[in-house]
Amino acid sequence: MTARIELREVGPRDGLQNESATVPTTTKVAFVERLAAARLPYVEATSFVSPKWIPQLADGPEVAKGLKKRPGTSYAALVPNLKGYEAFRAAGTLDVAAVFMSATETHNRKNIAKSIGDTFPVLREVVDAARRDGFTARGYVSVVFGCPYEGKVPVESVLRVARELLAMGCEEISLGDTVGYANPRQVKEVLARVFELASPGRFSLHFHDTRGTALANALAAFEAGARRFDGSVGGLGGCPYAPGAAGNVATEELAYLFSEMGLETGVDLDALLDAARFIAQALHRELPSKYLKARSSARPA
Amino acid sequence: MTARIELREVGPRDGLQNESATVPTTTKVAFVERLAAARLPYVEATSFVSPKWIPQLADGPEVAKGLKKRPGTSYAALVPNLKGYEAFRAAGTLDVAAVFMSATETHNRKNIAKSIGDTFPVLREVVDAARRDGFTARGYVSVVFGCPYEGKVPVESVLRVARELLAMGCEEISLGDTVGYANPRQVKEVLARVFELASPGRFSLHFHDTRGTALANALAAFEAGARRFDGSVGGLGGCPYAPGAAGNVATEELAYLFSEMGLETGVDLDALLDAARFIAQALHRELPSKYLKARSSARPA
Repeated sequence: MTARIELREVGPRDGLQNESATVPTTTKVAFVERLAAARLPYVEATSFVSPKWIPQLADGPEVAKGLKKRPGTSYAALVPNLKGYEAFRAAGTLDVAAVFMSATETHNRKNIAKSIGDTFPVLREVVDAARRDGFTARGYVSVVFGCPYEGKVPVESVLRVARELLAMGCEEISLGDTVGYANPRQVKEVLARVFELASPGRFSLHFHDTRGTALANALAAFEAGARRFDGSVGGLGGCPYAPGAAGNVATEELAYLFSEMGLETGVDLDALLDAARFIAQALHRELPSKYLKARSSARPA
Repeated sequence: MTARIELREVGPRDGLQNESATVPTTTKVAFVERLAAARLPYVEATSFVSPKWIPQLADGPEVAKGLKKRPGTSYAALVPNLKGYEAFRAAGTLDVAAVFMSATETHNRKNIAKSIGDTFPVLREVVDAARRDGFTARGYVSVVFGCPYEGKVPVESVLRVARELLAMGCEEISLGDTVGYANPRQVKEVLARVFELASPGRFSLHFHDTRGTALANALAAFEAGARRFDGSVGGLGGCPYAPGAAGNVATEELAYLFSEMGLETGVDLDALLDAARFIAQALHRELPSKYLKARSSARPA
């Protein structure tokens, strides 16, 4: 009767990388540990992408080294290449190496400065090394449901990249609606094809709430069989393609939605809200999560 | 293939009644007319509830008298009793008299100072008078999916009130998730029962986005057969039970969601956003709609 939902917290990485305020390393470490204390099974703690590209996460090695392992939570980091992998391995606290690429040539070139075909071997080196050393590999696919440069994305482009990432040994594939273009009908159509490649348990759905539709898309994905979802606590991070607009779906809104539907997430929702308030205070800004606002109002509803 | 979605705009009434800034009568009239220009089939323009209860809408008669009729748009107003009905009728511009009550005794008493049983005859007088004069009657049911005072609401309580409103001659029943407690599974369960009373075309779903779940609930309602939805442009209005939290779902987010799914709403989305910007400017505040923010950002995504 009770299906289990697994949430992947990407706030410390995907959220913070889009925030403009400077966050001290110790605050980042405390933030990740609060998220782990909320019993999230996966927390993406930082990135080993060059500080030239993601200055906010230039302290990746220090953040990773500062983390205390916690049973039940896997710590992950973004790893762009073998050089980044060496820093990942050296940290000694991380479990999951996350590689990334895009479903469209233009977005991939803008993000990685390579064609899709030329990206595969770079990612394969990382995945091979990670698996040889006993780590888990995760693969991100960006712009699955629409691209700010190319518009509509043929499902065949998504299948090609996902198939390759699975074949190189990624245990989980995160399907990203990077600019919040997805709609529920499309989500069901795309997932019907994607779930022919491997079981739904191998995929996580990464929705952005740019246009307010993330939870509707998550519901559609759930109905299509998806059980894993990426979120950023508080809706932390914005949309680089639309300054002022919302970015990642808020993890607590996913947790609330699914738990109200009678599904088990295992997450401590109050502890998750504490983590959201902690990072909001550090950033000196209100986060976009409506659930957080409702639960933080003068007269709790 | 293409199902038609009918949107009911309640911003000038349900939205503005919860805003604290004072809005001049001429601004309200211009706001309603902009919404009509966006080709919304239904715009709830104001209320004839006593100014003692809704001071923001004390100028109901003046707003109504100021409206120009527009083919394709019905203008509505909230009508609490026969005295309010006289003002409704006198306006000469209104088409739909909207009566209202709650699915729980406590919420009904707090809102109307009467038991549910004692409310029916008051509403019946209004509906009888309106229909006799050739107007359409609409019935609101509040706290259908959860009550801030009583918690869970038995579906039998909802069915009792909806059945009575249909029997007294309401052409459409608006089912309100007044505090944003609904979840998609519950929405499908409740609607399966409600749609046994009358066809889905007789009901409009009125979701609040207090916890970010309104569009997911709207999707679930659509999948259950619902085709009519209430919205407040920009997400105008807040939640009286949780100050600082969001209130009504934004009409443009409903319009965007359904049109992206390939469904026809008939609404001019750009004109709708213009109306949202117009009222945001009058209120000197940013409205909560994420779609509005995305479409108003420096680099449109």
